[in-house]
Amino acid sequence: MEQFRNIGLMGRPGNATVADTLEYLLQFLERRGVKVIVDEDTAVILPRPGLQVCTRGMLGEACDLVIVVGGDGSMLHAARSLARFNKPVLGINRGRLGFLTDISPGEIDSKVAAVLDGDYVIEQRFMLNMEVKSAGNPVGEGIALNDIVLYAGKSVHMIEFELYIEGKFVYRQRSDGLIIATPTGSTAYALSGGGPIMHPRLDAMVLVPMHPHALSSRPIVVDGNSEIKLLMCTEDINPMVSCDAQAGISLHAGDWVYVNKHPYKLRLLHPPGHDFYAACRTKLGWSSQLTNSGE
Amino acid sequence: MEQFRNIGLMGRPGNATVADTLEYLLQFLERRGVKVIVDEDTAVILPRPGLQVCTRGMLGEACDLVIVVGGDGSMLHAARSLARFNKPVLGINRGRLGFLTDISPGEIDSKVAAVLDGDYVIEQRFMLNMEVKSAGNPVGEGIALNDIVLYAGKSVHMIEFELYIEGKFVYRQRSDGLIIATPTGSTAYALSGGGPIMHPRLDAMVLVPMHPHALSSRPIVVDGNSEIKLLMCTEDINPMVSCDAQAGISLHAGDWVYVNKHPYKLRLLHPPGHDFYAACRTKLGWSSQLTNSGE
Amino acid sequence: MEQFRNIGLMGRPGNATVADTLEYLLQFLERRGVKVIVDEDTAVILPRPGLQVCTRGMLGEACDLVIVVGGDGSMLHAARSLARFNKPVLGINRGRLGFLTDISPGEIDSKVAAVLDGDYVIEQRFMLNMEVKSAGNPVGEGIALNDIVLYAGKSVHMIEFELYIEGKFVYRQRSDGLIIATPTGSTAYALSGGGPIMHPRLDAMVLVPMHPHALSSRPIVVDGNSEIKLLMCTEDINPMVSCDAQAGISLHAGDWVYVNKHPYKLRLLHPPGHDFYAACRTKLGWSSQLTNSGE
Amino acid sequence: MEQFRNIGLMGRPGNATVADTLEYLLQFLERRGVKVIVDEDTAVILPRPGLQVCTRGMLGEACDLVIVVGGDGSMLHAARSLARFNKPVLGINRGRLGFLTDISPGEIDSKVAAVLDGDYVIEQRFMLNMEVKSAGNPVGEGIALNDIVLYAGKSVHMIEFELYIEGKFVYRQRSDGLIIATPTGSTAYALSGGGPIMHPRLDAMVLVPMHPHALSSRPIVVDGNSEIKLLMCTEDINPMVSCDAQAGISLHAGDWVYVNKHPYKLRLLHPPGHDFYAACRTKLGWSSQLTNSGE
Repeated sequence: MEQFRNIGLMGRPGNATVADTLEYLLQFLERRGVKVIVDEDTAVILPRPGLQVCTRGMLGEACDLVIVVGGDGSMLHAARSLARFNKPVLGINRGRLGFLTDISPGEIDSKVAAVLDGDYVIEQRFMLNMEVKSAGNPVGEGIALNDIVLYAGKSVHMIEFELYIEGKFVYRQRSDGLIIATPTGSTAYALSGGGPIMHPRLDAMVLVPMHPHALSSRPIVVDGNSEIKLLMCTEDINPMVSCDAQAGISLHAGDWVYVNKHPYKLRLLHPPGHDFYAACRTKLGWSSQLTNSGE
Repeated sequence: MEQFRNIGLMGRPGNATVADTLEYLLQFLERRGVKVIVDEDTAVILPRPGLQVCTRGMLGEACDLVIVVGGDGSMLHAARSLARFNKPVLGINRGRLGFLTDISPGEIDSKVAAVLDGDYVIEQRFMLNMEVKSAGNPVGEGIALNDIVLYAGKSVHMIEFELYIEGKFVYRQRSDGLIIATPTGSTAYALSGGGPIMHPRLDAMVLVPMHPHALSSRPIVVDGNSEIKLLMCTEDINPMVSCDAQAGISLHAGDWVYVNKHPYKLRLLHPPGHDFYAACRTKLGWSSQLTNSGE
Repeated sequence: MEQFRNIGLMGRPGNATVADTLEYLLQFLERRGVKVIVDEDTAVILPRPGLQVCTRGMLGEACDLVIVVGGDGSMLHAARSLARFNKPVLGINRGRLGFLTDISPGEIDSKVAAVLDGDYVIEQRFMLNMEVKSAGNPVGEGIALNDIVLYAGKSVHMIEFELYIEGKFVYRQRSDGLIIATPTGSTAYALSGGGPIMHPRLDAMVLVPMHPHALSSRPIVVDGNSEIKLLMCTEDINPMVSCDAQAGISLHAGDWVYVNKHPYKLRLLHPPGHDFYAACRTKLGWSSQLTNSGE
Repeated sequence: MEQFRNIGLMGRPGNATVADTLEYLLQFLERRGVKVIVDEDTAVILPRPGLQVCTRGMLGEACDLVIVVGGDGSMLHAARSLARFNKPVLGINRGRLGFLTDISPGEIDSKVAAVLDGDYVIEQRFMLNMEVKSAGNPVGEGIALNDIVLYAGKSVHMIEFELYIEGKFVYRQRSDGLIIATPTGSTAYALSGGGPIMHPRLDAMVLVPMHPHALSSRPIVVDGNSEIKLLMCTEDINPMVSCDAQAGISLHAGDWVYVNKHPYKLRLLHPPGHDFYAACRTKLGWSSQLTNSGE
């Protein structure tokens, strides 16, 4: 079991709840006697003389554990900058329960304490690597914990592309785009597109067509180690490709997008009692039911 | 505006909440000085010396207004027996809000009073008529407020049938069956099958294929006056057809099922302030939202 | 029965098949002794000394009938410019059967002749009117035969808006946008979004949410005369709204989009034997079937 | 590489095409000089003096390879009886291409020859094991290559059950039932229910709710080694559970259905050039496209 002696704190500026929770968490950690380090953005909202500050890029190196305060979006952001250090991450949400940030502010005393005492579950969440090549030359890259999305950009017209999995041609598709999601991302945007829920420990990716022209196009689930390639075919539209809804890369006919599993994984900590299906019930409203179909 | 002087009460036996609400309602109506009549089933759970009792078949004739206590299923039942008398019906649910029974027990004093005072909205809900013919001879019929469902009966195998609309051949379908729903039924079983929500005042029917073999089969919305015909094609399976989830009629290859608008309509009363979309928000959980796709 | 003496021809430049078909059609019509008029764009691909040419805007006034050569997209284009003249339109596709252009080039001799002889079916296809208001001032408008689409523009992030039908609040939705489609448009983009097929004669619109965040959001079918209003709520994204996939109008938080039935209708001619469901079978592949589920 | 010297033949009686293909195949194999063995059912449609016949149960033991003539349904049947012998199986379809039977009768000379010459691809397809317990006592069991389906039996009413995965409670669901499918079954019935396509080599199962009452219920993909448990909750309906659409087992409230991976696998042979995605394109009509949404 790991000992967490140097703990990093991250929180997105601009939200009063996040600032309050960071302050509370800092005091809690100081009482525990552990060393706290914050990145430069977080230091702005957590001004404290003597608090150790480093760049976001260094935070993963300087800490044994990073605690992220915010929503699942903040965790996506943290995951991309921390993944290469292989350091564990714990998430505290700002109110609404998240799939990734599953400790509420009111549970800090009990659940963060439990984690520091070594009572936690660790999950390896794999990430996706994306590379874009134009005329054989790399022109862009990215990393995603949730999903890589090919979309029409500013056009209202459908795009056309060819999909290859493990070197095999799958289809030429006309649609609004394609979502390639990890299990982590399967409960986010891919779910809105009609994709299945995938258990976080499943080693698989799902490819979800967005508004496909052909009614027979369906989500496809493939092994997590599959090599995915997309060839842009649309002459008059410049599609975009985006990682975890970050700023996208513009594409041209003939460009290739390559997607595969990233060598880095997010080491996500959960407090004791964490339950994926309980999170689904809460977040997806699995308890709300119709009552009309026959009483 | 109609004066309601003779009021019928209906409630399904076997539920303590229904009995309590009927009792409360009876006392409320007696205080209002209107005459109350109950059908024989309801009399069992509302034993009261001197209370006028008649057969369910006569209730529609004897009353100016019938109040149904129960869920939407009780209202479906009442609709089928009352429709031919063209008498208005008001629904009081037993707890969970229904699309058809939209007064809660706690609102009886205010909302039933408002209705008796003439402050209500009246909706005409159309119903479906079904007839089954075997070798040209009628072998069964039915009436539905929600839906007419063709299904595989006890078989786990798919059935095959031909669909005709207004005399035109539409397709030969292999599936688990077909749901033909009114706007009223569009928020019930048809919705679970992937059908659209139809506003109650729309004069239309929706045909929703159940697990169709061909991925390109989709719900079809047609005019409410359309004549629908289904020809059974499956030799080795006996499909069933059912109205509002009542006991079904067994079918054989070569049998025809005819569906069209019934001449009777349900006259459904709503208290003031009724709002279809508000009911959707409550019943379908339109306010519950994911928060994962980007914070 | 109308006599067609002055016939307009329209075809999109840049396609050799369209040019060939226009040439063939012109000779056919000249042999029939009717007067032919072309708009300026079409004159470029149909150079013929003595052929009467007018502006596209005047074509509807100068002719008794307009024949459009192209795909359904060309027909959408023609519909918007011809609708106000209430003149009938006939469509000849360039190869692939369309829902709107249902005569193939090889059938010109028989089917166009039949139409000129008075043997045809006429359909009234209603259109949608859109108006955008910003701070109460009109800032844009449009007309659509297929659909009006609200979408996220160039952003990969979801937009948020409030939907009102007939003045009633329906929901605040977070999604990629909303498709509002006529029956004509129900077999186009709205179908890719999971909307139902609506028979062309149905007087209804369908509202199809695009990748809605809430899993309980479903297509809603409302009366064709309903007033639809959308209020933009997204501060940091500028959504777009577009008619029949034409260039869109950029929107800001607080802007309203109004959609209702347009006073003009497209008078669409079909040759004898036209059958909507036959078109569905061909275009949607209703005959192609899986064979796996149990033989 | 295995040498196939003793080859079993299986085909379902009652189909002339199957009989013709079996006869042709027998002559082909005799010319190749290999020994042919048939099971008792197949012997009836392939009467040949001197042909070795054994029980279906023995066929797997007596042969190095079994060739199945028929559709995917015949292959499902063969898989269940042959799996415990771990012998490879090759499928020849009767006309329509199948996912499992991917050699057409006209390709016997070339493709079966190639397989006998050692030029083939072998796939391990896992199967599901099902056990039913009532009051703790086993009352039924089954084995499935495609899917295990819980359904309402002859009732038109929804059933209610609790789902547990790996011992964790997932939800209590009200629906028409649940499909638990292997990757092999993901392109069969589960696909009609809205499930994703899963690549045959993926080690996963998908759970597809059938017409779930709660709109937020979605297909769930879990690891292939997961333990699935279903607890029946419906008092007044007897649900059924069925393996590969075989005769079902009737269930009662309080009964448990256990599903997990079967220790046996089907060893499915493919001729050279086999391509899962090519089969998808052919069988699912991925090439057929709409042309309406904008030309």
